[in-house]
Amino acid sequence: MTNSDLTSTVKAMVFDTFGSVVDWRSSIVRDLTRWGQENGFSADWTAFADKWRSMYQPSMEQVRNGQRAWTILDVLHRESLEILITEFGLDAMTEAQRVHVNRVWHRLDGWPDAVGGLTRLKSKYIIAPLSNGNVSLLTDIAKYTGLPWDLNLSTEIFHCYKPQPQSYLGVCSILQLEPSQVMMCAAHNDDLLAARNVGLKTAFWPRPTEYGPSQTKNLVATEQWDIVATDIRDFARQMGV
Amino acid sequence: MTNSDLTSTVKAMVFDTFGSVVDWRSSIVRDLTRWGQENGFSADWTAFADKWRSMYQPSMEQVRNGQRAWTILDVLHRESLEILITEFGLDAMTEAQRVHVNRVWHRLDGWPDAVGGLTRLKSKYIIAPLSNGNVSLLTDIAKYTGLPWDLNLSTEIFHCYKPQPQSYLGVCSILQLEPSQVMMCAAHNDDLLAARNVGLKTAFWPRPTEYGPSQTKNLVATEQWDIVATDIRDFARQMGV
Repeated sequence: MTNSDLTSTVKAMVFDTFGSVVDWRSSIVRDLTRWGQENGFSADWTAFADKWRSMYQPSMEQVRNGQRAWTILDVLHRESLEILITEFGLDAMTEAQRVHVNRVWHRLDGWPDAVGGLTRLKSKYIIAPLSNGNVSLLTDIAKYTGLPWDLNLSTEIFHCYKPQPQSYLGVCSILQLEPSQVMMCAAHNDDLLAARNVGLKTAFWPRPTEYGPSQTKNLVATEQWDIVATDIRDFARQMGV
Repeated sequence: MTNSDLTSTVKAMVFDTFGSVVDWRSSIVRDLTRWGQENGFSADWTAFADKWRSMYQPSMEQVRNGQRAWTILDVLHRESLEILITEFGLDAMTEAQRVHVNRVWHRLDGWPDAVGGLTRLKSKYIIAPLSNGNVSLLTDIAKYTGLPWDLNLSTEIFHCYKPQPQSYLGVCSILQLEPSQVMMCAAHNDDLLAARNVGLKTAFWPRPTEYGPSQTKNLVATEQWDIVATDIRDFARQMGV
C-alpha cells in the first residue's frame, strides 16, 4: 500500500501516549526534583522514575489475566508508589504529598514535535490517544501540554489494557470504522504488532531516549509497518499534511 | 453560592449538545434542502426535521426502560428515518442515500456563540459534551463545526441515556471529580434538574428558537440554576473567563 492509498483509506489515528507522544521519564525527573527540593525530600529521582515504570507492565498483567477486577492505572500507579516510597526511604511523605506525587503521571510534557505534528494531522484525520492511562490522566496531560486530541480513547473505556485485542477493536467499534481505516501510531513495536494482528494500519517512529541514554529496545522498526517516520512531524508529512 | 465560589469549585463542565450547543433544526433543514435539490428529492424538510426529532425521546425510552438492549443513537435515528421516509413519500432513496441522510446528525452547525464561548471556557475548565449522541456522532460534529472539546463524554460510554442518573455520575467517576466539581450546562431545564438531583452544579441559557419560532418550552430558567446566562459567551463571562 502506497502512502497515497493510506492517506485516502485512513480516517482515524490513535496514539500510544507514554513514550510515544509524551516524555514521561524526563518529565517525572524534572517534576519530582523540583518538588523534592521544595518539600525536603531527596532521592535519585531518575532511578525512582525508572523503577516506577518497571512496575507498570506487571501491575497491568494482573488485570489482563483476570487475577484482579478492572482497575484504573492511577490506582496501579499508587500501589507501586507505596512500594517505592519504602524502598527509597521516603516514608515521611504525607497522604496529600503521595496524592500529588502519584499525579505526576498527569503532568507529562510532550516530545518537542508532538503538538506541532498532531495539530497538522488533526486537519485531516480524527486523532485520539489510545493509552492505558485512564481518562482523567489523559485529559490532564492533554491540557497540561496542549495536545489537540479530537477525543480521548483511554483503554479505561473498554475495561482492558493494551495489547489486549479489545483495546484496538473497541476503538474501531466506537468510531464506527473498519480496522483498516484506523491507524495505530506508536514508538513501540509490540503495541503496533498487536494492533496489526487485528487489522489496523500502523505507524512507527523511534524515541531512542525514552528510557534514557542506554535504551536497547524500540530503537528501530522491527517489522514493515505501513509508515516508519523519524517523529510525529515527519509522520504528518508522510500522511500528506 | 456566589460566582467566585463557583469559579474556584468547578473543575469540569459538560454540555448538552443538540439544541444547547448546536442548532440541529436549522442545520438539518439547510443540509437536506440542498441535498434534496441535488438528488431529486423534495419534501417539507422543516416538518421532516421536527418529526424526526419528535421520535427521539420515545426511541431512547425503550432503551432506558429495559425493553431493548443498549443501542446507540445512530441506530435509533436510522429506525425513525425508515418510518419518515415512508410518511414523506421518499421511498426511492437508495441505501447509500439513507446512510447519508441519517448522518445529517453528524453535520450540525454550532450556534453562533458556541465556538467562541467554549474556547474561552477551555482556558480554565475541562470541557466536554455530555450528549445522548454516540461517540462517533459527537466526534464528527466537533470536527465539522470546530467545537474545541477536551474530551468526548457521550452517554454511549456509560451505556445509558440522559436523564438517567448514571449519565451524570459516570462523568464524575471517569473524571475523578466530586459531583459538586462538575457543572451540567444546557438549554433544557429537565436535563439540569436530573443533574442537580445527583449533586452537579448547573448552568442554563435559553435557545428560544431551537424548535422554531413557535417554541413554548425552555424559554426561561424554571429553577434557580447556579448560573443563568444569555448564551455560552455570557456564561463564560460569568465564570470568569
